[in-house]
Amino acid sequence: MATPVIPSEVEVLEYFSSLSNWGRWGEDDQLGTLNLVTAEKRAQAAALVRQGLTIGCARPLVSAAAADVVIPPLHFMMESGESHCLPHAHERGPRQMSADFIGMGFHGLTITHIDALCHIFWEGKMYNGRSADLVTISRGALTEGIEVLKDGVVTRGVLLDITKVRGVEWLEAGDGVFPEDLEAAEKAQGVRVEEGDALCLRLGWFKRREQAGAVSREIGRPGLHAASLPWLHERGVSVIAADASQDVNPSGYSQLDIPIHQVGIVAMGLWLIDAAQFDDLLPHCERLNRWTFMFVLAPLHFPGVTGSPITPLAVL
Amino acid sequence: MATPVIPSEVEVLEYFSSLSNWGRWGEDDQLGTLNLVTAEKRAQAAALVRQGLTIGCARPLVSAAAADVVIPPLHFMMESGESHCLPHAHERGPRQMSADFIGMGFHGLTITHIDALCHIFWEGKMYNGRSADLVTISRGALTEGIEVLKDGVVTRGVLLDITKVRGVEWLEAGDGVFPEDLEAAEKAQGVRVEEGDALCLRLGWFKRREQAGAVSREIGRPGLHAASLPWLHERGVSVIAADASQDVNPSGYSQLDIPIHQVGIVAMGLWLIDAAQFDDLLPHCERLNRWTFMFVLAPLHFPGVTGSPITPLAVL
Amino acid sequence: MATPVIPSEVEVLEYFSSLSNWGRWGEDDQLGTLNLVTAEKRAQAAALVRQGLTIGCARPLVSAAAADVVIPPLHFMMESGESHCLPHAHERGPRQMSADFIGMGFHGLTITHIDALCHIFWEGKMYNGRSADLVTISRGALTEGIEVLKDGVVTRGVLLDITKVRGVEWLEAGDGVFPEDLEAAEKAQGVRVEEGDALCLRLGWFKRREQAGAVSREIGRPGLHAASLPWLHERGVSVIAADASQDVNPSGYSQLDIPIHQVGIVAMGLWLIDAAQFDDLLPHCERLNRWTFMFVLAPLHFPGVTGSPITPLAVL
Amino acid sequence: MATPVIPSEVEVLEYFSSLSNWGRWGEDDQLGTLNLVTAEKRAQAAALVRQGLTIGCARPLVSAAAADVVIPPLHFMMESGESHCLPHAHERGPRQMSADFIGMGFHGLTITHIDALCHIFWEGKMYNGRSADLVTISRGALTEGIEVLKDGVVTRGVLLDITKVRGVEWLEAGDGVFPEDLEAAEKAQGVRVEEGDALCLRLGWFKRREQAGAVSREIGRPGLHAASLPWLHERGVSVIAADASQDVNPSGYSQLDIPIHQVGIVAMGLWLIDAAQFDDLLPHCERLNRWTFMFVLAPLHFPGVTGSPITPLAVL
Repeated sequence: MATPVIPSEVEVLEYFSSLSNWGRWGEDDQLGTLNLVTAEKRAQAAALVRQGLTIGCARPLVSAAAADVVIPPLHFMMESGESHCLPHAHERGPRQMSADFIGMGFHGLTITHIDALCHIFWEGKMYNGRSADLVTISRGALTEGIEVLKDGVVTRGVLLDITKVRGVEWLEAGDGVFPEDLEAAEKAQGVRVEEGDALCLRLGWFKRREQAGAVSREIGRPGLHAASLPWLHERGVSVIAADASQDVNPSGYSQLDIPIHQVGIVAMGLWLIDAAQFDDLLPHCERLNRWTFMFVLAPLHFPGVTGSPITPLAVL
Repeated sequence: MATPVIPSEVEVLEYFSSLSNWGRWGEDDQLGTLNLVTAEKRAQAAALVRQGLTIGCARPLVSAAAADVVIPPLHFMMESGESHCLPHAHERGPRQMSADFIGMGFHGLTITHIDALCHIFWEGKMYNGRSADLVTISRGALTEGIEVLKDGVVTRGVLLDITKVRGVEWLEAGDGVFPEDLEAAEKAQGVRVEEGDALCLRLGWFKRREQAGAVSREIGRPGLHAASLPWLHERGVSVIAADASQDVNPSGYSQLDIPIHQVGIVAMGLWLIDAAQFDDLLPHCERLNRWTFMFVLAPLHFPGVTGSPITPLAVL
Repeated sequence: MATPVIPSEVEVLEYFSSLSNWGRWGEDDQLGTLNLVTAEKRAQAAALVRQGLTIGCARPLVSAAAADVVIPPLHFMMESGESHCLPHAHERGPRQMSADFIGMGFHGLTITHIDALCHIFWEGKMYNGRSADLVTISRGALTEGIEVLKDGVVTRGVLLDITKVRGVEWLEAGDGVFPEDLEAAEKAQGVRVEEGDALCLRLGWFKRREQAGAVSREIGRPGLHAASLPWLHERGVSVIAADASQDVNPSGYSQLDIPIHQVGIVAMGLWLIDAAQFDDLLPHCERLNRWTFMFVLAPLHFPGVTGSPITPLAVL
Repeated sequence: MATPVIPSEVEVLEYFSSLSNWGRWGEDDQLGTLNLVTAEKRAQAAALVRQGLTIGCARPLVSAAAADVVIPPLHFMMESGESHCLPHAHERGPRQMSADFIGMGFHGLTITHIDALCHIFWEGKMYNGRSADLVTISRGALTEGIEVLKDGVVTRGVLLDITKVRGVEWLEAGDGVFPEDLEAAEKAQGVRVEEGDALCLRLGWFKRREQAGAVSREIGRPGLHAASLPWLHERGVSVIAADASQDVNPSGYSQLDIPIHQVGIVAMGLWLIDAAQFDDLLPHCERLNRWTFMFVLAPLHFPGVTGSPITPLAVL
C-alpha cells in the first residue's frame, strides 16, 4: 500500500467548497447523496438477492453503563409476565400481556444509528445552505429531519474489511482509514464501490469492545481519515456504515475534530451510520466470497428528529 | 359476499388447540410463523422488485396527547441548531451539532410496531408453551424477545384493501373483518395470500384519524374478527400488518377480548404489526395494478424487549 | 367589594420598570423576593408552630392523560414485589426489593411545582438583567437555576380563601383575582399579608378538577389579574402558591399573556408555585381559625433545572 | 471506645422478631417508626429554630455517568433561553420561557432519597406483614407507597459526626458503624438521640466522592453495622439519614446483605434516607456548637412510588 498523503487543515477546509453538493439536486433538496440511489439502482440491488439470506448489522442495545456510554438506553417493563404467574393471577381476568417503555439518546457511540443531515452544522449552516436555527429546541428539526427517509433506503451494499488488508484483528483508537486502504480492500476482495452504493466498513471496533472491553470516549476510536473525503465524493458513495463512528478520533486537526461528519454531512449531504456491526455478516461474505448485497435501511418515522436508531439489513 | 358465520366463544377457545403451532418447529422454536419464510421465499420476494420503488408503511410518531394515546412519544432535544446561530456562537468553537433523546411505550394504538411473541400470554403461557414468568420485570424477556428478529424479515407482502370491497372510506370501530372479506378482496384484486406471506390489511383507520379525528380507546376500533383465525392458519400467513390494531374491538367475546392477539400470538406464533398505514402505498398499488411486493421489517435490536417500533417497507 | 380598576396593557408594561427589583439586592443577586425572608422571619415562622400539625399542599402526581396534561408524569417499576411472590421466588436469593423510575416535564398545569427565576424571560432578559441565553440547551441554566434554593425556604404562609369572599365553590376559567379580592379576604379572615410572606391562594381550581373534571388548556384557568402586581410588590410577598396557575387565563392583554409570570418573575424576581392544592389545609385553618403558619419548601437540588416539583408544607 | 460485639447471622435473623414493630401501631399502620413523631414532638422540633438558618442536606443531582451510578439522572431542556436571543427572536412573539424534563431511577447510590416502607421485602412480606405482591408492576405500590408521607415530616434532627470520633476524614468502604460509635459521638457532642428523632449520620462518604472520586458499587461503602439495630430500636429513632447508604457493604453476612434495610424497613418500619450530605450543615453545627435542629422532609406526592428524591432540611 502506498504511503497516504495527509492533507493540511487548510486543504481539508477547502473541501467544504470543492466537494460541495449544495444546489446539485436543487435548492429544495434534503436527500443529499441519497439522490444517487435511483429506482434502477434499487432494482439492481434487489437483483443481488440470491441465497435469500438476511443479516442484521445492528449492535444489541444494552441498558448498562460503560466507558463509552453517556446515557444507557432505557428499558422499563410496564407489564411483565411474572404478574401472570402469581398464585392468584387468574383472578385478574384472562387478558395477560407484557409491555415496555424504551428510550435513548441514540447519537451515542454504541447505538447503531443513522444521522439525519440536520445533525451537523458548519458555521451555522446545514446541508444545502440552510440556517442551523431551523433545528429548534421546541419543535425539533423543521427541515432535514429523519422523516425524509420515511420510505426507507434500498441500495447496493459493499462490505470492505479493512482489518484484513491491515492484517489486524481490529484497528485501534486513532487509526485512520485512507483511500489507499479502501482501494487495497477493493482489490483484495475483487469489488469496486460505485455510485449510489452503501459503503460498509469493518474496522473490528465492535469485536474489540466485545473481546477487550469498551474504550472511553476520551481515548478515541478508529475511522475514516479526512483524506478519504475526495474519494468518497468521486465514487458517489450514498451512505457509509462503519462499526465505529465514521471519523478517526483524534482527527489530527484542530478545528475539524470530526471532518467526515463535518464535510461529509454538511457539504456533501452524505448519510452516515455510526456504530454498526459486521461481525455477523462477515463470515457469510467470506464463505460465499461475495461482498455486495442488497442493503436496506428503515429508520423510525419520527418527524423532527435528527436521526434514528436502526437495524441495517444486508440481504444476500 | 356470503354472510359470515360467527363462532361461539367456546369454538374460539378450541382454536388454542386446533390452530396450535406449539412444537411444530421444535420445542426450542421462538420464530413461530416466521418459519414459513424460507430462503427461497425471500429470494422470490426480492424478485418482485421491478419499479425500484420503496414505500414506508409507518405512521409518523407524534409527541402529542390524543384520545387514543396513553403516553405520547417523547422527543427532547439535547442540542439544537439554534445555539449555533446566537450572536456569539463562534466563541464556542467550530463543533456544531444537534442531538435528541427519544422514548416511547411503543405498544400504543398509534405507534407502528411489531409485537414479539412474548407480548401476549394465555393462562400463564406464551407461544410454544413457555412460562410467562420468563418475561421478568428486572431483566425483560428472557426468551421470545424481539432480538429473535435481529436479522430482519424479508418476505412477500400482499395488500388487501378491505375498504374497497366494503365500499366505504374506512371501517368503523366494531367492524370485524371476516374470511369472506379477505377472499372478496383477493378476488377483486386478483391475488391470493400464500404461505409465508405478510398480509397487509387496509381498513382506512389511519385515514379516519387524519380526516375525522382520533377515536378514544374505549370506543374501540375495526379489525380482524376471531372467525378469521382458521383462514390465517390455513393460508400460512407469517405476519399481519393492519392500519388499526389487528383485533376488532369490542371483540364480541367475554374472555377473549383480543382473540387475534391471544390465539394468533400464543397458539400460532403469529407475528402482528399494529398501527401501520397503507395510505402512501395504496395509490401506487392502484396505479400499477400490482398488490404484491417485497416486504421488509427491521426491528430495533433491543434484547429483552417485547416488540419494537418499526417502519415496514413495501418495495415494488 | 369595590369595582376593580383594570390597567391598560401600556400601564402593565410600565410595571416592568416601576415594580422592578433589578439591582435592589445587588447585581449578583439570584434570589429575588426571597431576600425578603430574613433569618428573623424564619424564626418567627417557626414560632407559629403550635398544634404540631403538618399538612402537604401538593397535588398527587398521576400518570394519566387528561385535557390539561401534555406529558403525563412517567412512573415505571424497575423491580416489583410481585416477582418475590412467584412460586419459585426463594430460588433467587434473599434480597427482595422494589424500585422505580420517575420522570416528568414538571412545568405542567397539574403538577405542583416552583418556577426558578430563569423560567421566564422578557425581551431576551431574565431577572436582574441577565441574558436569556444563559439558559442553554446543552448544560441547562447557567444562572438562576433552582439550585439557588438548595437550602429550602422557611417563611410565614398566609392562606387567603378567595372562593369564600366570592361566595363560590370555585373560580372559573377567566376569573381574575384583584387586590380588592385579596383585601376582602384579609378582612374576612382577620389577617394581613406582610413582607416576606408566602401568599397561598385558594381558588378552588383543584376541587373543580376533582369534582367536575379537567378543563382543557385552551379554555383557560382562574388566577391573579395583572392589576394585582403593584399590591404584591408593595406588600413584599416573597412567594405565591396558587391552586391554579398564578395567572388568570385569558389574561385580557395581547402581548402579556401571563403577566404575573412575566412581570412577577422577570421584573420583581417573584417566586411562583403553580398547581398547589389547599383542600387538605383549608378545613384545619377553618377549624382552628388560624390562617398563618410555617410554610416550608424543599425543591430538588438539581443544578441547571428551571424549577422543581415540590410538596409545600404548611405546619400549624 | 469498647470493642464492638458482632452478632452472628442467626442472631441478626432473630431481630426480625425481637425488634419487630408489626402490629404495634395497629394492623392498618403504614407509618412505622414515624408514629413516634407526635404532634408534641413536631412542636418541640419547631421550637429548636433559633438562628433562623436553613441548610439543605441533599447532594446535587448530576446528569453524568460515574462508577457508582447506574442510570444518570436525566435532564432535557424542552425550551431554552437561547432561542429567545436569536437575531429574529422577536418575530416569535413576546412569550419567552424555558422548561425542562427531568427523570431518575432515584434509588441510586448518589441520589438523596427516602425509601418508602414498600421498598424492601423479606420472604415475600413487607412491613406489618403485607404481601410483597401488593407492589405491582402495572399500578405501582398499592400500599405503603410514598404517598403516606404526603404531609411531610417535621421532627428533631440530631447530627452525629462519626468521622470525628474515629479521627478520620471519611470512613472507607466496609467500615461499619456500631452502637459504640454512636454513643461515643453522643458523648463527644453532648447530645442524646431520643424517641422520634431523625438520626443524621455523617460518615464523610460524600466528601470522599468529591475529593477522591467515586467508588464503584462492587467495592462497597461504609454504613451502619447490623449490630446497631437493637440500639436504633431501643432509642426509638424514626428516620435515619446517612451520607452513604445506611448499610455497611459488604455487610459481613451471607443472606442479609443489607440488614439495616432488611430488618430496619421490613421488621421495624424504619424510614431510611440514603445518600444525603451533611458537609454544608457540619460547619454550622460546629460553629454554633449545637447538634440538634428542626429536620423537615417533603417527599414528592407521587402515589404508588416506592420512595422519593428529597432535599432534607435542617433548620437551626
